[in-house]
Amino acid sequence: MTILSFFTRASRAFNGYPASAKLLLLCTLSLSGGGVVAYSEAQVDASKTSVQVNEKDCKKKRVVVLGTGWAGISFLKDLDVSAYDVQVVSPRNYFAFTPLLPSVTCGTVEARSIVEPVRNIIKKRNGEIQFWEAECMKIDAANKKLLCRYTVENNLVGNDEFSLEYDYLVLAVGAQVNTFNTPGVLENCHFLKEVEDAQKIRRTVIDCFEKAVLPGLSEEERRINLHFVIVGGGPTGVEFAAELHDFVQEDLVNLYPSVKDMVKITVIQSGDHILNMFDERISSFAEQKFRRDGIEVQTGSRVISVSDKEITMKLKAKGEICSVPHGLVVWSTGVETRPFVKDFMGQIGQANRRVLATDEWLRVKGCEDVYALGDCATINQRKVMEDIAAIFKAADKDNSGFLTVEEFKDVIDDILERYPQVEHYLKSKHLRDVTDLMKDSEGNDIDEVDIEGFKLALCQADSQVKNLPATAQVAAQQGAYLSKCFNRKSKWKDNPEGPRRFRGSGRHQFHPFQYVLLVVSYASN
Amino acid sequence: MTILSFFTRASRAFNGYPASAKLLLLCTLSLSGGGVVAYSEAQVDASKTSVQVNEKDCKKKRVVVLGTGWAGISFLKDLDVSAYDVQVVSPRNYFAFTPLLPSVTCGTVEARSIVEPVRNIIKKRNGEIQFWEAECMKIDAANKKLLCRYTVENNLVGNDEFSLEYDYLVLAVGAQVNTFNTPGVLENCHFLKEVEDAQKIRRTVIDCFEKAVLPGLSEEERRINLHFVIVGGGPTGVEFAAELHDFVQEDLVNLYPSVKDMVKITVIQSGDHILNMFDERISSFAEQKFRRDGIEVQTGSRVISVSDKEITMKLKAKGEICSVPHGLVVWSTGVETRPFVKDFMGQIGQANRRVLATDEWLRVKGCEDVYALGDCATINQRKVMEDIAAIFKAADKDNSGFLTVEEFKDVIDDILERYPQVEHYLKSKHLRDVTDLMKDSEGNDIDEVDIEGFKLALCQADSQVKNLPATAQVAAQQGAYLSKCFNRKSKWKDNPEGPRRFRGSGRHQFHPFQYVLLVVSYASN
Repeated sequence: MTILSFFTRASRAFNGYPASAKLLLLCTLSLSGGGVVAYSEAQVDASKTSVQVNEKDCKKKRVVVLGTGWAGISFLKDLDVSAYDVQVVSPRNYFAFTPLLPSVTCGTVEARSIVEPVRNIIKKRNGEIQFWEAECMKIDAANKKLLCRYTVENNLVGNDEFSLEYDYLVLAVGAQVNTFNTPGVLENCHFLKEVEDAQKIRRTVIDCFEKAVLPGLSEEERRINLHFVIVGGGPTGVEFAAELHDFVQEDLVNLYPSVKDMVKITVIQSGDHILNMFDERISSFAEQKFRRDGIEVQTGSRVISVSDKEITMKLKAKGEICSVPHGLVVWSTGVETRPFVKDFMGQIGQANRRVLATDEWLRVKGCEDVYALGDCATINQRKVMEDIAAIFKAADKDNSGFLTVEEFKDVIDDILERYPQVEHYLKSKHLRDVTDLMKDSEGNDIDEVDIEGFKLALCQADSQVKNLPATAQVAAQQGAYLSKCFNRKSKWKDNPEGPRRFRGSGRHQFHPFQYVLLVVSYASN
Repeated sequence: MTILSFFTRASRAFNGYPASAKLLLLCTLSLSGGGVVAYSEAQVDASKTSVQVNEKDCKKKRVVVLGTGWAGISFLKDLDVSAYDVQVVSPRNYFAFTPLLPSVTCGTVEARSIVEPVRNIIKKRNGEIQFWEAECMKIDAANKKLLCRYTVENNLVGNDEFSLEYDYLVLAVGAQVNTFNTPGVLENCHFLKEVEDAQKIRRTVIDCFEKAVLPGLSEEERRINLHFVIVGGGPTGVEFAAELHDFVQEDLVNLYPSVKDMVKITVIQSGDHILNMFDERISSFAEQKFRRDGIEVQTGSRVISVSDKEITMKLKAKGEICSVPHGLVVWSTGVETRPFVKDFMGQIGQANRRVLATDEWLRVKGCEDVYALGDCATINQRKVMEDIAAIFKAADKDNSGFLTVEEFKDVIDDILERYPQVEHYLKSKHLRDVTDLMKDSEGNDIDEVDIEGFKLALCQADSQVKNLPATAQVAAQQGAYLSKCFNRKSKWKDNPEGPRRFRGSGRHQFHPFQYVLLVVSYASN
């Protein structure tokens, strides 16, 4: 009997279903034999100084989820909570709809409209999930333990640290702002990661206008107070710049008419173009739109320090260093791995990596029973060329040393699922069918290939391996995918549904995660 | 007009009638003759380095309003801005509907619903009011100058201090929290003065619950984290205690079922009863209701220090000192005069007073052209006995040494207006008419009184002088009253409308301020 199930029952009983509570109690009795006493003991447990799970009483596996962002909440939403003891640890007791953060900075959307309390979400799952508002400080991978700490305020009465044990750990902690150790950034810049950040930016933008209209300032000083600088020309920075421009032009110029022509918005980008992770057409469209709107885009500039008054950068082309006074700086240059995840990576032999690596099933490499999803990890896609000999051998059923079209077709579905880059490669070459890859050295269609011909056909496919973008969509899809795997873990053990194991025998238990790019429609419903 | 109807009308007027806005502009033009040019110049002024009003170009008197609370905003709402150059200085660029602050602490009302940006209000006055988000640091009464400072953040580019000159100064700065110099209060208590305070309390209450459910705490520690202490049993403290109780019982027990029986709310009151400024029936009703709800009321206790963990108090009856651990303390024991107002009081001979004094026309005593209203001042009601000889002399038209009923009736309206305590006195004695006061020493009605009889009749009236409560209603009525006086200042100079001057000749220019107790109705419309 775990604390969780006690809590589940307790809260069910507390939430005003007296009749069904009795029924549940009866079921419990018949299932676990005399467990009622144990439950009341477990109730005492909940108030003890550590979370101890009695193995004898409980056969449910303990799942600890770290994080309540897109990945974590999406995992919890669909997880079969009757099959697991679920505990969630997150320093934020709410889920935030992060894509709308730039809109919160300018009041287009209210902060309260983009958050949902985690405890509301839990309540809807009949209270069978436990939540702790705390931060994970350390993962002890060898002992399957976590050290957590309550970090919101320091006047907690009692010990603010506690440890949790897990059977499965789901890491969904996202990433933290990357300052690249640039001096002054943490102290003098605003960020756009959390809801509080967005609210703070909103207040500060207004304050900049209030400062700019004060008596006793020169026009130059007014202009400086109204110089808004965005470092980083990625989607977040660009969207904030656009929102800020609209906010200024549609609202603030009416409230502060005397300074309406003194506002300046600058986007500083180290690369040659903003939005350079997207198609060139998107990038140049954004640059042209910004030019029309009077938003200055300063490319090829690397920020080397930020003070409360100035931002200093190096112009890459000329090697010059220049400083520009500002009223507000928003730092939006990307993310890096959180320190406790870095520490965990050290324990499992990933010390040299920048980001935690998982396989295509979101299992952390080098560590059993730990899953990672969302921004805190990347999927290491298996290269097809690593397995090319095994694939050929498995496909060549008659061991003839040649693969016929038929034999190829037999394994192609498994190849495409296990190595999705092959499909991307086909698309990039405008090929209809994988058998179109079967050519001789002069480019003519052939009926069978040897191992060398097979290698030649697929040797460029791995160039199509791409990291998934660090977006809400990816994280949410991963959460939903992982919960499905968890829900079918026991049933699918003997009925694997995944692709064929080319290097081993049989099939993988699950389909690997596959990201589906969806076009978000903002239709109301 | 009640507070509600003020809001109703205000919001009606503010909520988008473009047609009427145009109409207003036309009216303004025709009333102020050529004022439009002056206004646009005033707009340019805002971008100059200091606020210099060119006397040649502008003959309008400069009115500086300090504060944007109930008094200040209510004054601005009705002020004829075509007749004055109006500048407003306040550290808050919004007006807050303060009576609803306790409801914001528990989310019954959203903070955004109880605030209105000052610049929105100004915009609706055709922008003829200038606003500076700053604090007044010093009033120079002799030179009619103010020193102001921008205080929100310290990274203002340019000089954060500026000075303003005024012809009339309207002080509506309210008061500040009174800690009675109790150690630890500023550091460890929450307050309920500003909107930010209420939002902070809301977050902290939730945090207390998050802390209380953490693993690793004893039941005793959970209870301490859920011990909410309110210091001060006045209307604000009592309302907050009640709101908190409802919030806990209606919402939080469902979200944190495991600790629902560990919550404790304590109200600490130095006097013998809570709400002791009201009728005894109200006070005992509240105490009984709290007892039923399980809210502990600890009377006769004076808090002597507050730490982050404990609140220490002296039990008056026994003289004992005891300490109680807490999760959150809200300090709500009243207000005191702001330091720069204290300094100003020193300049004008009010150094020995606790609160700034005005006369019945809201004019600050001992200083020309300065008005004070709302919580930052109290009205010093003139005693009728101070003027009794003059009144008798003025009323005794035929100099007979006796006042007839007719002669008394002639001056009674002026007496009642100038000394409203006389009317309160009549009411308290259940007298229909002031002439009922004319009795001989044996209590029989008489037709005329001499000076001694007249004194005897009114000698107890001054006991009915009462300070007005420090409420939003009083402040709003004072603001509206003062704006009417300002609007009629020039016209009424030769046509005084006020009561007769008993000590001098002629009449007072305006009616004195009179507070009308209104019952607020929460009818929706």
